[in-house]
Formats: sequence, C-alpha cells, structure tokens
Amino acid sequence: MQQFSPAEWQSWERFYRANFINSLTGFKSASLIGTINAQGVPNLGMFSSIVHIGSDPALIGYINRPIAAAPHTLANIKANGLYTVNHIHPSFVEKAHQTSAKYPDEVNEFTEVGLTEEYLDGINVPFVKESTIKYLLSLKEIIPIALNATFLVIGQLEKVLIDPSLKPTSDGFLHLDQAGSISSNGLDAYYKTELIDRYDYAKPDTPVQKMANKI
Amino acid sequence: MQQFSPAEWQSWERFYRANFINSLTGFKSASLIGTINAQGVPNLGMFSSIVHIGSDPALIGYINRPIAAAPHTLANIKANGLYTVNHIHPSFVEKAHQTSAKYPDEVNEFTEVGLTEEYLDGINVPFVKESTIKYLLSLKEIIPIALNATFLVIGQLEKVLIDPSLKPTSDGFLHLDQAGSISSNGLDAYYKTELIDRYDYAKPDTPVQKMANKI
Repeated sequence: MQQFSPAEWQSWERFYRANFINSLTGFKSASLIGTINAQGVPNLGMFSSIVHIGSDPALIGYINRPIAAAPHTLANIKANGLYTVNHIHPSFVEKAHQTSAKYPDEVNEFTEVGLTEEYLDGINVPFVKESTIKYLLSLKEIIPIALNATFLVIGQLEKVLIDPSLKPTSDGFLHLDQAGSISSNGLDAYYKTELIDRYDYAKPDTPVQKMANKI
Repeated sequence: MQQFSPAEWQSWERFYRANFINSLTGFKSASLIGTINAQGVPNLGMFSSIVHIGSDPALIGYINRPIAAAPHTLANIKANGLYTVNHIHPSFVEKAHQTSAKYPDEVNEFTEVGLTEEYLDGINVPFVKESTIKYLLSLKEIIPIALNATFLVIGQLEKVLIDPSLKPTSDGFLHLDQAGSISSNGLDAYYKTELIDRYDYAKPDTPVQKMANKI
C-alpha cells in the first residue's frame, strides 16, 4: 500500500491537500441549502456534509465551515429559523456547482445560476423548484466545533416534498438512484449511482440475504 | 409534489420511518470502522455517517448512535484512542453489511464475517486488509448531541493507506469510482458510482467550466 503521513500532507499545497483529504471521507450527499436573509434576499449554497442525526425525532445536520469562509447560510438560518435542503439532479448539476462561487450577500444565487425559487404557503424560505426530493428544516441547535471553528448545525424535519413519480417502497425506502439524486466526492466531482443491492437486517449466525425487491 | 408532514411520519411503523428519513439525507459514505477493546478483541462496524470536518488540520467525524444501541465502537475508541476507517469495495459489501449484526463485545467481527485484520508496525488497531482506501484516526473530541443522545466523534488523521493502483491526480484528488468505493443510502442499500464530471472552482460572473481531465 502507498502510505501517507501527516508531515506529507501538511507540506502539500493547500488545494492539493484539500482535494486529497476531502476524498478520504468517501461519497457525499451534495445538496443545495436554501435560506433567506433578514432583508428578504434568498440564498442558495452547495453543502456536501449533510448527515443523518436521528429518525425519531427526525433530525438532520450539516457542517458549516468557519464563519469567515461561509457566512451567509448560517446567518440566514439564525435569523429565520427555517431552511430547505434540495437534492441535485444531473440536469442541473452545473448550476448547483455555480452556487459555490462567493457571491455578495445581496445577490440572489437562484437568479445568478438560473434555478427557480419555489415557496409553500406561509413558509418564507425558498425550495429549489427543479429538485425532485427536498425538505424543510427548523433550526434546533448550532454546536460549535472548537477544534477548527466549524459548526454542526442541526435541524428538525418539518416537511418533505417528493416528485409524484417517486413512490416510497413498501418499507419506506426511497430509490435515490431512480430519483436521479447525485452523489459527490471531494470539492468538485459529481456522480450518478447504480444500485448493487439492498440487504435484509443483519443478524448474528444468519447469512447475509439480498432483499427481495420492494415495490 | 407529494407532501409529507411530521404527523404522518410520527405515525409510521418504526422501520418504515427509519427507511424514509434515512433516505432523505442522500448518498452516504458507508465505511467500516475498526477498533480494539481493552481485552484485545477487535471490533468492526459499519458506519454511514462519516463526515469531513476540515482539511488543515485534517479532521474527520462520524455520528455514533445512543450508547445503548451502539456501545462497542465508541467504548473502544475511548479506551484505545486510535481507530481506523476502511472504504468498502463491491467484492466484500455483503461481509461489510453483516458487521451491522449485534454481536457480543467478545466476538471478533473480522472472523465472523470473513474479513482480514491488518496491522501497521506499532499501531494496535486493525485495518481491513481487503480495503483499497483506509486511514487511521486519533480521537480528538466526543461531542454529545443532547437532542437525541447521539455523539459527534471527531478524529485527527494520522495515516492514510491507498492501494498502489490508485494514484492521486495532479491536484490531489482520488477517483473513488475507479477505486471501487461504494456509496450507501438508507439503512441497507449499496451503490456503484459513475463520474458525471469535475468542475473548476466556481467564481461569480464566470461560466461553469468542466475540468480538463487530471491524470
């Protein structure tokens, strides 16, 4: 095996190191977070660190970089309390990537990149109309990570919107490959996926079983 | 769009809800975490909540479920201070899934599922020999998430092992699809991936550019 040690990656050029370290954590669920600022300007940003916290209550987290590097989304979430997470489809992956450019706070990324704001009645935060799976979160807790000045931002699930063509299976699962949701790797790579299999709940002394296809 | 609200998913059967909520966060980087307990028994467990915390210093986190549901990995990390994260290849995805069965603490999951322990000189924690990308972490912080009794466990990167056939690109990126690293969705679904594209660093007023292929 090729071995790499801290002295090596600490000596690397910044972007080389960022690309390498970001690849190690494996495939990610790059999604667009939609917010609105105190002046009513929508914001849309790409976040690849969405993480499942729990199902009951339904809690979903993401890592926000240090405030100086990524100020707008977190400020808007604090001000408004509501935010949306929107899956990315290959048909608009280039527009989604473009939201990661550093636009000033008064710029509406939806307009800049060519995606469409969508609002639910009485909810003053934008979804991405083009997204086939999207959900609304209400802020529950911002946990500072002192080690590197980042934050774990945790929201509670308040609403889920799914394209009518995508039905949950008989056991509640969503075939994200059929929905076309992309995965990401590193800072700038996006992927389609192909199902290998689902497997039954694992038990000691029971051989692994492929799941009979759930409708 | 189909709309789902909290009253609905709170009324669902537990596994239906878990499947549905776990699909929402999108594709995940299911990996095997290797640890060793105070009696010297190795432990291997599947974790799909690996999350990038930062590149400099190189910090990687994962979410540990409540202690009652998932006691061994976290206890071992606390006792030993070192743990490994090992990417999963389609050739051993069934064995990897089987590690999620609830084995007693005195059982060695490597032996039970048929994977091979691999040790580096002087480092008393097992890697998965079959894994083509794997890394060693030292515990830096365990952050309790009071909302649902889970934990964000953060480790610092201490060593990286990569199969000789996989070279970082000229800008440090790892083509995880070429390495065969799988992605996961929900509790039990595993995927191969296919690169759509990499894109250049996004800038305002500059059209999105596909990256020229990096070697």
